[in-house]
Amino acid sequence: MISADKTFLTFITCCIVPPILMLIYLPNLSLQWIIIQSGVFSFGAGLLTFKLIPTIAELTTQANLTGMDLNKKGDPKFSGKKIPESLGICTSVVYLVCVIVFQLFQWFSFPETIQLSEYNAALTSICFMILLGFGDDVLNLRWRYKLILPMFASLPLLVAYAGGTSVVVPDISFPVNLRFYLGTVFDLGILYRIYLLLLAIFCTNSINILAGINGLEVGQSVVIATSIIIHNLIELTLSVNSTSAPQFGNPHLFSLILMVPFLFTTIALLFYNWYPSRVFVGDTYTYFAGMCFAVVAILCHFSKTLLLFFIPQILNFLYSIPQLFGLIPCPRHRVPKYNPETGKMHAIPTNLTILNLFLMIFGPMTERRLCIYLLAFQGFCSCIGFGIRYFIAPYFF
Amino acid sequence: MISADKTFLTFITCCIVPPILMLIYLPNLSLQWIIIQSGVFSFGAGLLTFKLIPTIAELTTQANLTGMDLNKKGDPKFSGKKIPESLGICTSVVYLVCVIVFQLFQWFSFPETIQLSEYNAALTSICFMILLGFGDDVLNLRWRYKLILPMFASLPLLVAYAGGTSVVVPDISFPVNLRFYLGTVFDLGILYRIYLLLLAIFCTNSINILAGINGLEVGQSVVIATSIIIHNLIELTLSVNSTSAPQFGNPHLFSLILMVPFLFTTIALLFYNWYPSRVFVGDTYTYFAGMCFAVVAILCHFSKTLLLFFIPQILNFLYSIPQLFGLIPCPRHRVPKYNPETGKMHAIPTNLTILNLFLMIFGPMTERRLCIYLLAFQGFCSCIGFGIRYFIAPYFF
Repeated sequence: MISADKTFLTFITCCIVPPILMLIYLPNLSLQWIIIQSGVFSFGAGLLTFKLIPTIAELTTQANLTGMDLNKKGDPKFSGKKIPESLGICTSVVYLVCVIVFQLFQWFSFPETIQLSEYNAALTSICFMILLGFGDDVLNLRWRYKLILPMFASLPLLVAYAGGTSVVVPDISFPVNLRFYLGTVFDLGILYRIYLLLLAIFCTNSINILAGINGLEVGQSVVIATSIIIHNLIELTLSVNSTSAPQFGNPHLFSLILMVPFLFTTIALLFYNWYPSRVFVGDTYTYFAGMCFAVVAILCHFSKTLLLFFIPQILNFLYSIPQLFGLIPCPRHRVPKYNPETGKMHAIPTNLTILNLFLMIFGPMTERRLCIYLLAFQGFCSCIGFGIRYFIAPYFF
Repeated sequence: MISADKTFLTFITCCIVPPILMLIYLPNLSLQWIIIQSGVFSFGAGLLTFKLIPTIAELTTQANLTGMDLNKKGDPKFSGKKIPESLGICTSVVYLVCVIVFQLFQWFSFPETIQLSEYNAALTSICFMILLGFGDDVLNLRWRYKLILPMFASLPLLVAYAGGTSVVVPDISFPVNLRFYLGTVFDLGILYRIYLLLLAIFCTNSINILAGINGLEVGQSVVIATSIIIHNLIELTLSVNSTSAPQFGNPHLFSLILMVPFLFTTIALLFYNWYPSRVFVGDTYTYFAGMCFAVVAILCHFSKTLLLFFIPQILNFLYSIPQLFGLIPCPRHRVPKYNPETGKMHAIPTNLTILNLFLMIFGPMTERRLCIYLLAFQGFCSCIGFGIRYFIAPYFF
């Protein structure tokens, strides 16, 4: 019932081992202890998700929430088979329960580490986004609702956002008379909050449009979540080294507490969604994942770093613009074309997604290989992102 | 498309006019001003709900979320007609958006009135409950999930609950040696939080089981919401009179900000759900309503007063116990029997609900009249509740 080929297991190992190694070398025992406990809860949540998905898949099938696999049309092994949809609902509800139970646990054990208003704002935004995603899967909402509602879901974040609203102009020597502003701090005020709002809308929708082949939505979320966790651990290590003050209020600890259960529940879903998919994840999952990333980036103040982990999504969005804004006709599904004789996917050059771009560059390949290429590209971009964040950015700021 | 008979309009008037009169006589201008602004937002939310319900009803019909009206079986005017289900999703999402937008507005205009952690805990619990209700409507969850999940949805409330955990033993002269404890304060600690958890589970489920005829779920919620609003206004008036301190942090103001939009969006839904129903509300609505009541009662510290407004639900629950716990066989729907010849409902004495009890006491009557009787009973019980709260309780505490 599950997919566990070698590549899949290698992928999961690459995503889980580095954070664990970094955690071991984190030079603060009580921080390690909180993160390990969060990890134990999350592992439990992952197991629960893994157990529950087949049950919930039956329920979604009975509710007629099913889909055909477009990329296997004509393949006698798969054709005509209906695949349960919207299994994101299972992952996301288990995730919510895990975070809520851990909130209670943390509040009893380490009350000094908890920032209730931000914690609950995060839960509200994520929960509202899950509700909208599931509503969309069930009711097939129109585009205008899809664009407006994520905005309302992110408003609680903006109210709870307690960080600064200033930006620093990079301190390099331009040859023009911009020189006056270099290194200056601008307080953007309300504009900064509007930027955060747009970030949340971008995150929720950009994962949704980089999709269409088995395992891609969930796989890219695993890579992004791993990158965020590594970033948080680096920042925690740096701040522990630079000061002896307790790091309990550190926003990166809060981010870890939200991201670790996300990673585990998502991996559990990927077991079923990996090629060949036994379940589909639905808009419920893509909206949920996008909102989780936006929430941690906003509340823990690393929105610019997050964008470095979203490079493939940004490229895909920029490349898609002519179709999204109607300059080129846009079909409902912009997937490549499957050839049942060779078993390979072929590019459709008028569908402007990086899936088709990859197929044009590397030639036709199987769906499974295409997904692996794209996930490797996502990982490669994260490495570039880390390079920019830790080696290039310090020169400017 | 809507039901607006005379009785319905009288009912709505009785529920809206008393709070407005009390608001006018509230002896504090800035409090009045906040409540009026909340009222304007809520009125807008009500109108929006009213406009959206027909659109969403089409979408739920397409998604096969429909139901047959069991109490009109055999009536040629209605038979075979499928009625859109789960319209609670429309009411509750508009409600959430209204509360979130008002949170933003309030945070800009009256930042001193806002308690972010409690506000967001309330939003999280309500939103999670809506998600579970809608999930239940779509996926038909099993009983065990229905009982467990509301518990998780209420946990954020318990963490955010900042009030006391003590109870006072009533100060009356028992003839036994309990005398020692009279007037003593007990700190129940964790037990008090468990009581609050059980309260939330009771509220969400008790509205769900006092149901089955057109307009009853929504109508009883209107009566309870009105009672809560009147209680909040009385308390605000009393506290303004007794002290000159600003009342911005008063929990009853917070309760009003959550209850006024609830009342308006619910009335909009009742227009369509009143006899003969054009839409059904689904578990989405009953869970949503129950959780809203639990949230305000818990966070604003009037859980015991809330129970006084739940007298019919408590009676119905106690009367139902033999069936709920399986001592008597329990069919899926415990509605009375409809006789298409007389157009009246007849009691089924083995179905232990106060609907059947009313039919046994007052004889067979039409569905519409039964609903009005039950709503009148709900209002009568609220009056008794106010009597107990303001005339009898002061003697004991």
